[in-house]
Amino acid sequence: MGVVTLLTDFGLADTYVGQLKGAILTIAPAATLVDLTHAVPPQDVFAGAFLLWTAVEAAPPGSVHVAVVDPGVGSSRKAVAARSGRGDFFVGPDNGLLVPALDRLGGCAEAVELTQGQYWRQTQSSTFHGRDIFAPVAAHLANGVALADLGQPVELQRPFSVAISDGPHGQVLHVDAYGNLITNLRRAASASIQGQRARFVSHYAAAQPGELIALVGSSGLLEIAVRDGSAAALTGAVRGDAVELLN
Amino acid sequence: MGVVTLLTDFGLADTYVGQLKGAILTIAPAATLVDLTHAVPPQDVFAGAFLLWTAVEAAPPGSVHVAVVDPGVGSSRKAVAARSGRGDFFVGPDNGLLVPALDRLGGCAEAVELTQGQYWRQTQSSTFHGRDIFAPVAAHLANGVALADLGQPVELQRPFSVAISDGPHGQVLHVDAYGNLITNLRRAASASIQGQRARFVSHYAAAQPGELIALVGSSGLLEIAVRDGSAAALTGAVRGDAVELLN
Amino acid sequence: MGVVTLLTDFGLADTYVGQLKGAILTIAPAATLVDLTHAVPPQDVFAGAFLLWTAVEAAPPGSVHVAVVDPGVGSSRKAVAARSGRGDFFVGPDNGLLVPALDRLGGCAEAVELTQGQYWRQTQSSTFHGRDIFAPVAAHLANGVALADLGQPVELQRPFSVAISDGPHGQVLHVDAYGNLITNLRRAASASIQGQRARFVSHYAAAQPGELIALVGSSGLLEIAVRDGSAAALTGAVRGDAVELLN
Repeated sequence: MGVVTLLTDFGLADTYVGQLKGAILTIAPAATLVDLTHAVPPQDVFAGAFLLWTAVEAAPPGSVHVAVVDPGVGSSRKAVAARSGRGDFFVGPDNGLLVPALDRLGGCAEAVELTQGQYWRQTQSSTFHGRDIFAPVAAHLANGVALADLGQPVELQRPFSVAISDGPHGQVLHVDAYGNLITNLRRAASASIQGQRARFVSHYAAAQPGELIALVGSSGLLEIAVRDGSAAALTGAVRGDAVELLN
Repeated sequence: MGVVTLLTDFGLADTYVGQLKGAILTIAPAATLVDLTHAVPPQDVFAGAFLLWTAVEAAPPGSVHVAVVDPGVGSSRKAVAARSGRGDFFVGPDNGLLVPALDRLGGCAEAVELTQGQYWRQTQSSTFHGRDIFAPVAAHLANGVALADLGQPVELQRPFSVAISDGPHGQVLHVDAYGNLITNLRRAASASIQGQRARFVSHYAAAQPGELIALVGSSGLLEIAVRDGSAAALTGAVRGDAVELLN
Repeated sequence: MGVVTLLTDFGLADTYVGQLKGAILTIAPAATLVDLTHAVPPQDVFAGAFLLWTAVEAAPPGSVHVAVVDPGVGSSRKAVAARSGRGDFFVGPDNGLLVPALDRLGGCAEAVELTQGQYWRQTQSSTFHGRDIFAPVAAHLANGVALADLGQPVELQRPFSVAISDGPHGQVLHVDAYGNLITNLRRAASASIQGQRARFVSHYAAAQPGELIALVGSSGLLEIAVRDGSAAALTGAVRGDAVELLN
């Protein structure tokens, strides 16, 4: 019995995450639950997709990942589950949220639209598919139910991608909670952003306090940071802004 | 060995929740711990009771629920444990916190005042009964100790209730972290609040951005919401304000 | 298979904590993970050390504690693991973070510098030793690997201490999320801080709303608090400020 991870935009102030977990443990009592984050900005599917992408590689191979950033809940958007080349399972809405993480773990080997209601909560609300559809399906996958039993084969929507690049032209993919600017560049080099130079360093302690620096972060991507400060505040940069490698 | 859920007003900035969990796992090492929420507004017993009410139905039947919102800790308020009709156990202060959730799971089948100190931490602080009394008792219940062994039969205090209604007159029970106004009405209908009309929709995506809407939420209660916004901010409504069904 | 606790300054908005957990469960799938807190102020090693000190006594004896508040990551600061007199293990940077908690659990019985890379992630980033070194090492300790196999004996750095005192002169060790001022004094007495008198009470409910009080908190230390308010806001006191026992 394996790991089930959870990533949502529910926050922790209400009991929505607790209800997801209760729904999973009701069906798969021996599952080990791991929170990836529940602080995805509300309904920001791209941010959720990026955060899921950052986290899945460190999870045990074969984990089940439930992700819920779902502005279209209750509409005609599909509910889906998929298996990656590495053997992890993903469950969530078909709005692009799952795709970068699937690609990171060897691509999408198989995907289904969730249509088999016997694997869901007996009655489903129109606002909380996380608890009523995704969580039960994830629990059944953790119990060993075959993906093909959960629904019909489907091609996942790909409304965006996390396009990693060797540069020299790149962009900010994500601004983290400390104001670090994570770029889509995988080179170890100094960089320019908003007209300011960020000197390459190999680790934080090599920077001066307050200095704008570039370093390779834990996901292998170049990050623009300020030692003991916020690069987002210092540069004014936001997601999508251009970054250029120097030298 | 089952699930032990936790709901408190401790927040996550200190280690109080971690200490609760350590105390439980010391006695019941195979328990599966689930956080419902730790962001109950400090000492707001009614909000804690409502949030517990929202969460317990999704938990596995037979779970043990520890809830600590306890402004009277150290005073003469009783410490109690109870069993619901569904077979879940509840542990916490006797201030009304546990009662709505008990009622939701089939009512209170049995309740005791916690008097048997051999099931507590060896020494108890006067400020942290969560760690020193409630957590150890919950762990013993998870281990199969009988409720009747923990203390003397008691009638629980009922200083308030979560009174669900068919309307047309209702009120706001809770304002969630997104500014959604959860009412005590279980009807699917448009509603009026603070002189504004909230149009009934079946799901969020059916609303216009910025529109005040009414929809049936994940607990089966009518919620007043704003797509991509805060109904609390738009209407100025707070807990207790009147809501009237339209149709 | 036992408990692995986690304490960091990573926050919960990103997936860093989730990646730590994935790294642990990849190696020790049956470990029970417990969050102590992830809200240590960024890079505040003393605050992290104090919070770890508050939490470890309630954990099951023999637990493994991973702590990451690590401004020197990637520099020449050592990575270490240690065993306490009680038999708990600690893993983290050698910057003082682990020492007060070790002392609380019977002192440091054995410590090693982590030098045996076969117990680490295959490739290590220079910014995230939590995931790449500390988490895998903690998982191997939970699996029963001997401390001596992980590296060479080392004397831990002790750049500060949590010096508990009987008074009458003491200081503020920590300001918690509610504005309570936790002192280094273990006496039950009224106290003076910033020229204001804090009356001793045995529990919160014995105070008047808004009254500045002193009471013995859950760690056995005298705390200055305000019922339904913030002692930090009322007194202006910060960490390090003097406190004097009265009578």
